[in-house]
Amino acid sequence: MKYFKSDNTASVCAEVLAGLAEANGAPAALYGMDPWSQQLDGAFGRLFETDVRVFTVLSGTAANSLALATFVPPWGTVLAHAESHIERDECGAPEFFTGGARLSLVEGAGAKMTPGALTVRLKWFDSHVHSVQPAALSLTQATERGAVYRPEEVRALADVAHANKMAVHMDGARFANAVVALGCSPADVTWRAGVDALSFGAIKNGGMNAEAVVFFPSAFATPERLTEFEFRRKRAGHLACKGRYFAAQLLPMLRNDLWRRNAGHANRLAAKIGAACRGCLTVPVETNQVFARLGEARIAALTAQDFAFYPWGPAGSGEARFVVSWDTPEADVDALCKALLALEADRK
Amino acid sequence: MKYFKSDNTASVCAEVLAGLAEANGAPAALYGMDPWSQQLDGAFGRLFETDVRVFTVLSGTAANSLALATFVPPWGTVLAHAESHIERDECGAPEFFTGGARLSLVEGAGAKMTPGALTVRLKWFDSHVHSVQPAALSLTQATERGAVYRPEEVRALADVAHANKMAVHMDGARFANAVVALGCSPADVTWRAGVDALSFGAIKNGGMNAEAVVFFPSAFATPERLTEFEFRRKRAGHLACKGRYFAAQLLPMLRNDLWRRNAGHANRLAAKIGAACRGCLTVPVETNQVFARLGEARIAALTAQDFAFYPWGPAGSGEARFVVSWDTPEADVDALCKALLALEADRK
Amino acid sequence: MKYFKSDNTASVCAEVLAGLAEANGAPAALYGMDPWSQQLDGAFGRLFETDVRVFTVLSGTAANSLALATFVPPWGTVLAHAESHIERDECGAPEFFTGGARLSLVEGAGAKMTPGALTVRLKWFDSHVHSVQPAALSLTQATERGAVYRPEEVRALADVAHANKMAVHMDGARFANAVVALGCSPADVTWRAGVDALSFGAIKNGGMNAEAVVFFPSAFATPERLTEFEFRRKRAGHLACKGRYFAAQLLPMLRNDLWRRNAGHANRLAAKIGAACRGCLTVPVETNQVFARLGEARIAALTAQDFAFYPWGPAGSGEARFVVSWDTPEADVDALCKALLALEADRK
Amino acid sequence: MKYFKSDNTASVCAEVLAGLAEANGAPAALYGMDPWSQQLDGAFGRLFETDVRVFTVLSGTAANSLALATFVPPWGTVLAHAESHIERDECGAPEFFTGGARLSLVEGAGAKMTPGALTVRLKWFDSHVHSVQPAALSLTQATERGAVYRPEEVRALADVAHANKMAVHMDGARFANAVVALGCSPADVTWRAGVDALSFGAIKNGGMNAEAVVFFPSAFATPERLTEFEFRRKRAGHLACKGRYFAAQLLPMLRNDLWRRNAGHANRLAAKIGAACRGCLTVPVETNQVFARLGEARIAALTAQDFAFYPWGPAGSGEARFVVSWDTPEADVDALCKALLALEADRK
Repeated sequence: MKYFKSDNTASVCAEVLAGLAEANGAPAALYGMDPWSQQLDGAFGRLFETDVRVFTVLSGTAANSLALATFVPPWGTVLAHAESHIERDECGAPEFFTGGARLSLVEGAGAKMTPGALTVRLKWFDSHVHSVQPAALSLTQATERGAVYRPEEVRALADVAHANKMAVHMDGARFANAVVALGCSPADVTWRAGVDALSFGAIKNGGMNAEAVVFFPSAFATPERLTEFEFRRKRAGHLACKGRYFAAQLLPMLRNDLWRRNAGHANRLAAKIGAACRGCLTVPVETNQVFARLGEARIAALTAQDFAFYPWGPAGSGEARFVVSWDTPEADVDALCKALLALEADRK
Repeated sequence: MKYFKSDNTASVCAEVLAGLAEANGAPAALYGMDPWSQQLDGAFGRLFETDVRVFTVLSGTAANSLALATFVPPWGTVLAHAESHIERDECGAPEFFTGGARLSLVEGAGAKMTPGALTVRLKWFDSHVHSVQPAALSLTQATERGAVYRPEEVRALADVAHANKMAVHMDGARFANAVVALGCSPADVTWRAGVDALSFGAIKNGGMNAEAVVFFPSAFATPERLTEFEFRRKRAGHLACKGRYFAAQLLPMLRNDLWRRNAGHANRLAAKIGAACRGCLTVPVETNQVFARLGEARIAALTAQDFAFYPWGPAGSGEARFVVSWDTPEADVDALCKALLALEADRK
Repeated sequence: MKYFKSDNTASVCAEVLAGLAEANGAPAALYGMDPWSQQLDGAFGRLFETDVRVFTVLSGTAANSLALATFVPPWGTVLAHAESHIERDECGAPEFFTGGARLSLVEGAGAKMTPGALTVRLKWFDSHVHSVQPAALSLTQATERGAVYRPEEVRALADVAHANKMAVHMDGARFANAVVALGCSPADVTWRAGVDALSFGAIKNGGMNAEAVVFFPSAFATPERLTEFEFRRKRAGHLACKGRYFAAQLLPMLRNDLWRRNAGHANRLAAKIGAACRGCLTVPVETNQVFARLGEARIAALTAQDFAFYPWGPAGSGEARFVVSWDTPEADVDALCKALLALEADRK
Repeated sequence: MKYFKSDNTASVCAEVLAGLAEANGAPAALYGMDPWSQQLDGAFGRLFETDVRVFTVLSGTAANSLALATFVPPWGTVLAHAESHIERDECGAPEFFTGGARLSLVEGAGAKMTPGALTVRLKWFDSHVHSVQPAALSLTQATERGAVYRPEEVRALADVAHANKMAVHMDGARFANAVVALGCSPADVTWRAGVDALSFGAIKNGGMNAEAVVFFPSAFATPERLTEFEFRRKRAGHLACKGRYFAAQLLPMLRNDLWRRNAGHANRLAAKIGAACRGCLTVPVETNQVFARLGEARIAALTAQDFAFYPWGPAGSGEARFVVSWDTPEADVDALCKALLALEADRK
């Protein structure tokens, strides 16, 4: 089987496993008071070129929901894209963690939102008690369709959000892939562009089971709210007893640009696949995901050749998604490209 | 520093780290559909000599709360000991996961509950809509005071619970220590004694960051409720993306009785400490925890000698807790015993 | 001032006040065990020509949310129109009462949903744990735009819902106006068309502060769920201590077709207004609400003449809404019509 | 039947019904923007001799829970008496409204709490994330056992609460009876003694279905929190559409000391009953409730003579509760006293 189903089917990179081993072997303080966890703020602060507060959790779902719950009261609403992970793939986790806040959806190509569409959607809400209150904007970087927001695009959306007293959250499950694609610094596309909190994804990029929530200096991320974050995290069972084994996964990821190299590999190979199905791409390939309308026949043919991937969209759409991971063998990608080109040639 | 603070300060045993490495290296299905996760029901079923359904989560807090939420509606109440972890140490997690159910407390020596005390407490409740409804009994095995419930004690409590239409949950954060102390089979003190669901603790016993919720054949653990468990787990962010790295921690624990050996080591050394402070034990030593009223002077003296442990109870109580872990060096225990005996001799 | 703002600005009809007086004067059983409350199931059962279970609450918001919470688990979703009251005007009450379920929106003219649009929207959801689960369809009758669903339209939508294991809830804040408009029996457009539960609105139709939730015979409204309803209602503070004063408002409403006469008055006068602004109606007038694109100039002119009404839609849309109540004086309506026609004549 | 079961079985006093009629007859602004609702802050402010903010709701359960939710985060805890209404009789409403906060119980004779017992109970909690955080003290005045807190007792308890950063809530379902018994001003036993918010009970004292939450000037009742209160109330379905009919019940209650006269009648007659069972009172009679250990034989005899009242405590306790209402006929009380004395004479 050649796997293009998800970057969650990938294995864990050697540096992360080594980090776990290195943290082992002696007692250490518990619940994040250990030396590894204590390095997280500093390490992420250097990456982002500013002071940050970092909290580890088990999953992207927990990271997103806990970040949102920090900003959004039960009667609040989160503006999010209709194809976002928090809307489509988290089983109502944002509602659970916020105590019943609402997602309000915005549409847009490539699973991206525009300031115009956001502004129109915000007109639904009134400040009176009958209406839920806009409290956060959640952007996905890279989006569920593999697209990226450029720093100035984030800035424009964040300006709309902040003008409406909404905090800006970025779901960065594939943040590394986006930064590599943009060629910018992590700071440029986050706090310098108005992001208040980031779910920094590590698992899809070679990690095992730890993600980080990063709070930037922000009028929304007040000390009181960060204290609340810690109560919420504990109460949700996401404060790891032996916290060092979360930190020990994340620190190697930041060392020597490992996060960048892993994402770069995936992006580069995805571009190859994108080239191989150029004629039928439904979204331009910017990161590690490829969406193409191959039609049912080609989907069946590829499946028969042991390529594992997901059809996309409603049944019968003929669209397919290929995800490349940090550890996808280049040979598998080349084989897929060859198969795609052969099928394309057959059609002609 | 010689550590007796908590079994969460311990490191991870080599077999667990090896399990992670063994599961690595190739793509695998995600979200618990991988071959390792698929072995969990079978492996735990063999341990418990019956069919079970097993779900992994990050922490004991999540395990307890998700198990309870499976049985307890928002208007339900969980009968639990006043010193239980769910009451004292989980920041209201049971309330969060159940949607606002209540803990109703029962007292008892050694953090143990008796059927009589449980029966008296149940008289508070009426079946009408003004009262919260008893829906689960939660027992801790071993208790927060290191005591164990014998199979017939569990049976007697479970009978009261079941007669009142309450499910029985066991918080087994230190289940291994209890089973070793009892010398019984895991089945004897769980489902054969009326337990419907168990939080099976691995982390304190040499694991890293995975715990298991085990559902036994039970009128309460219906297929519909187990399906609900899975929605609740996802929604709480406890469904690990790369599920194999949870299963790969738990499977080695069950192999070759590793769980039993780890707990046996801790229990045996705790008994040594218990013997060394025989005159001032506040609870008989049955598992891996020792509670002794040393007085402030001896607590200070031990602390000055680099023994790390927690004072217990309200400030000034003079009580101390020593926890022995799977990896506590016997030399550290011997040093502690020697120090305790020397301090005892000084007093005379 | 001539009031066309809302049917909530109307007063209470004499029969309802008389009902309160009639129930007064002697002790009576509390919490709905009084003789008045005990008549509700029978009285509504006669109205709906079937066995029903009826529960009173303070408001339409509570009625809708409690009915939905009966059918929808925390990980469920309610399919509703994008202009529905539960989406626009209840401050997230459905999320609060359900423990965090989600509203998923469907669009459609006249604030009505079609089976086709519903079917398309349902394709978003999968049965796996990553997706919220469709659990109820909520229809508004009459809609927020004054339109009505004909029995066969309700039937077609209910069939889609039931085929997807979703219960059907009807928000009947203006149910009386809809039934009068349709000229059918209340049964025809509810349970005979597949409705499982109805929020029966009384307040907008001459009542004071009691609404009724009516459960019809249904596979969804199981005895267990109705018992749960009662716990949810108590827990939400909606079980009135002196329940008789809720029942005593509703019973007169059902007596001698009062509900029908009140709604008939409002509908008839709304039709007059509809005729007076025939050229600029944005939705055909079917019940007691009139929506017309008058333009800002005419809106200003009417306001200057002491007609009180709400502009509708986003600022600058030029649309206005006129609501006629059970007690709106015909003279006020005639004055409005005259003013509208005069303004229309001026424009030509 | 002579009713001594509950003050909720009483009818509504004529002044309240007249208030409803007086508010009727013309359109009025909705959702509490009407002239009656707008008088509430002023009227209660005069009663309490300070600036207050007043919000109406349907029930004491809603009043208590909404007041507590204003002060208590989901990870907070409310210190309350083990016999309090919020613990025993509200089906978990505080947990529902707060998003899962906890009640922590304190015992004490007469259902009263002492500063000493409160202080001891507060030692359970730590400021770290593992513990729920004390956030409010809830006192009942008069208590569920008919006892009253004197102003200096409230002050001493409030001082403990405030020193621990906890707000003070008073459940005043029978506040009028307590104030009459104390002979003090309403201010003396509320804000002057440290109370931050009061559930002002009207229903048990001659009202129909409106209670008031009164916020006093307080560091806890910040403008931001009062704004949140309004969102919470709407979201819970307790913002009455036609708000005037809530205000129109409460205003007559405050006029000409009606609240005081109604409560005085009930207290005076309860004292008569107390005198008639002096030998077996289990709590001294201070307000409108009488608790007496009559034994099963006398309970049966009284029941046979058509006196309706509740046995109290666990089955077989032999204790009975008699509640006198604002409208209990003095003849009924005299008959009860006569019967009690006759039974007493028989025993001798």
